[in-house]
Amino acid sequence: MAQLQNDVFLRALLRKPTPYTPVWIMRQAGRYLPEYNKIRSQAGSFLNLCKNPELATEVTMQPLDRFNLDAAILFSDILTIPDAMGLGLYFADGEGPKFERPLRDEKQIESLSAIDPNDQLAYVTDAVRSIKKALGGRLPLIGFSGSPFTLACYMIEGKGGTEFHRVKKMAYQRPDLFQKILEVTSASVIAYLNAQIQAGADAVMIFDTWGGSLTPRAFKTFSCDNLKQICHGLIREVDGEVIPRVVFTKGGGQWLEALAGTGADALGIDWSTDLGSARAKVGDRVALQGNMDPAVLLTNPDVVKKEVGNVLSDFGSGSGHVFNLGHGVSQFTPPENVLELVEAVHEQSRSYHPAV
Amino acid sequence: MAQLQNDVFLRALLRKPTPYTPVWIMRQAGRYLPEYNKIRSQAGSFLNLCKNPELATEVTMQPLDRFNLDAAILFSDILTIPDAMGLGLYFADGEGPKFERPLRDEKQIESLSAIDPNDQLAYVTDAVRSIKKALGGRLPLIGFSGSPFTLACYMIEGKGGTEFHRVKKMAYQRPDLFQKILEVTSASVIAYLNAQIQAGADAVMIFDTWGGSLTPRAFKTFSCDNLKQICHGLIREVDGEVIPRVVFTKGGGQWLEALAGTGADALGIDWSTDLGSARAKVGDRVALQGNMDPAVLLTNPDVVKKEVGNVLSDFGSGSGHVFNLGHGVSQFTPPENVLELVEAVHEQSRSYHPAV
Repeated sequence: MAQLQNDVFLRALLRKPTPYTPVWIMRQAGRYLPEYNKIRSQAGSFLNLCKNPELATEVTMQPLDRFNLDAAILFSDILTIPDAMGLGLYFADGEGPKFERPLRDEKQIESLSAIDPNDQLAYVTDAVRSIKKALGGRLPLIGFSGSPFTLACYMIEGKGGTEFHRVKKMAYQRPDLFQKILEVTSASVIAYLNAQIQAGADAVMIFDTWGGSLTPRAFKTFSCDNLKQICHGLIREVDGEVIPRVVFTKGGGQWLEALAGTGADALGIDWSTDLGSARAKVGDRVALQGNMDPAVLLTNPDVVKKEVGNVLSDFGSGSGHVFNLGHGVSQFTPPENVLELVEAVHEQSRSYHPAV
Repeated sequence: MAQLQNDVFLRALLRKPTPYTPVWIMRQAGRYLPEYNKIRSQAGSFLNLCKNPELATEVTMQPLDRFNLDAAILFSDILTIPDAMGLGLYFADGEGPKFERPLRDEKQIESLSAIDPNDQLAYVTDAVRSIKKALGGRLPLIGFSGSPFTLACYMIEGKGGTEFHRVKKMAYQRPDLFQKILEVTSASVIAYLNAQIQAGADAVMIFDTWGGSLTPRAFKTFSCDNLKQICHGLIREVDGEVIPRVVFTKGGGQWLEALAGTGADALGIDWSTDLGSARAKVGDRVALQGNMDPAVLLTNPDVVKKEVGNVLSDFGSGSGHVFNLGHGVSQFTPPENVLELVEAVHEQSRSYHPAV
């Protein structure tokens, strides 16, 4: 495997010294880029893009040609696992992801079994290999998956949401049934992320998008325990290089101590948490990734530059920070604001890193 | 004014000893009650109910006849102020509140002025007087309003949401304009809540429903400062009785210290925050109100009883807790679960209160 030309991102995740703060952006390959929309309309749908390794490679590379980003991220979806389980993932226009066959009875749940990623999700590992080839060692590649709880939310509700009534009713009333779903999805996530690592992913991230909808007690039982199980099941090193794990529970700012104990190397932080307080809570156990409000990118380069300064200053001096947004970039973002963000992070962050 | 027969709720808000933990439920008069749906369909719409003091009184009293609640809450909406400003509040079927004429240009914003509640919102103060009469001193009555930031969200977006792109773009790029909206709404909220107090409200609550969508820095500037200004502008005593103020920032669990400094007597807590940790953060500065996950009420009486026990145990012994949900009751709640909740709180909480 080619030696990485830029490993600042991987070093920061492992809290090693870096000359500046690395930056990438959640959903950096996406609808705010005209070149992405062109390929997507050719492909016919978002899912066609995900399932075609060549096109997935092309859109993964697009933001890297425009912006001086420090990492690439696999172009895919967090819901590939339940799709591989046969639930029928689809995207209705202008809406989030949905499933044609959500889990609605006990029998369906009892018959769930963990996926074999090399079989049912070969299009993903093929994309990882193809992207690694296209990168040619220029930047590290991030692989990812949804968290078991977040997958369970979509599998039970059939879509995203804010209240998760069906999910919570099951979790409170039939925890045995809910745990069965979590067991199968956890085993699948481990196999899936390990397959991505074996195909060449340099780091992996677990998106616990809906973990923040839980009570602290339910978060421990129905999300955090599974995140821990996954971290402990992941391949730790490939060819002597550590594969860092990032865990991101959106809305989990109050549970950072617990999240720091999962075995993650870094935690994603959304914009509702002050990075300085987060750092004080987790100490030197994990690095932090985040957390600019994505809405800042709807303004103008002057505001972006100022808010980049606020985020860097919130984290303060030293290693262990990967700059990112607190959530995915909005489709309404003018690309020139992303350009300003990346340049401002690189420029302004040097003063926070003592010479190495 | 008649002496209150049950002042346990008011005493708990002021952290005075009580024999048990008082309980009321956000949206306790609402769609989960068949008798409410009957009156609502007769009235034709939710807004007709709000604007008719006689009907508002009838639905306010309905849950009190079914459940042994410790407080009544004015039947109204958090968005009456922008409606009185002429923005045209309406409710599309199955959706949240919307405005016909959201704030979309600078001129509109510059021409906003604070409302006179005794003129434009006389239907609310009339309802307060009518409900007080119907209560006859049986229970205290809670008056309420939306917070300035939350009102501004609806006024700018024209509806609720999760991302608040227009709101945040203005807050980041034109803070001067955004502050103008907050100034006018803050002055209106003060006048409005004081009019409710003068009409007989025994306590007031400010619903900062969307404050949790902000960064910590933006929360201070665009919500918390105005909450403080409001608390300082409210009538403190009527006939020698303190009128307690409750501030509830949904998603504000990370900012409880700041919220405890607003001049609120109590803070509303949603289910994502552990009540014990919240109590440790705010010390004896404020009481706490909350915080059972409303989804628990979708299960069955046994689960409800157990979860009531968890919430009471999270808070622990002593005064200063008002039991509530962490958000409004779902319309899909079976009323028998509310009955169980109220009885379980009263029964189980006695052991947490030393004899007085």
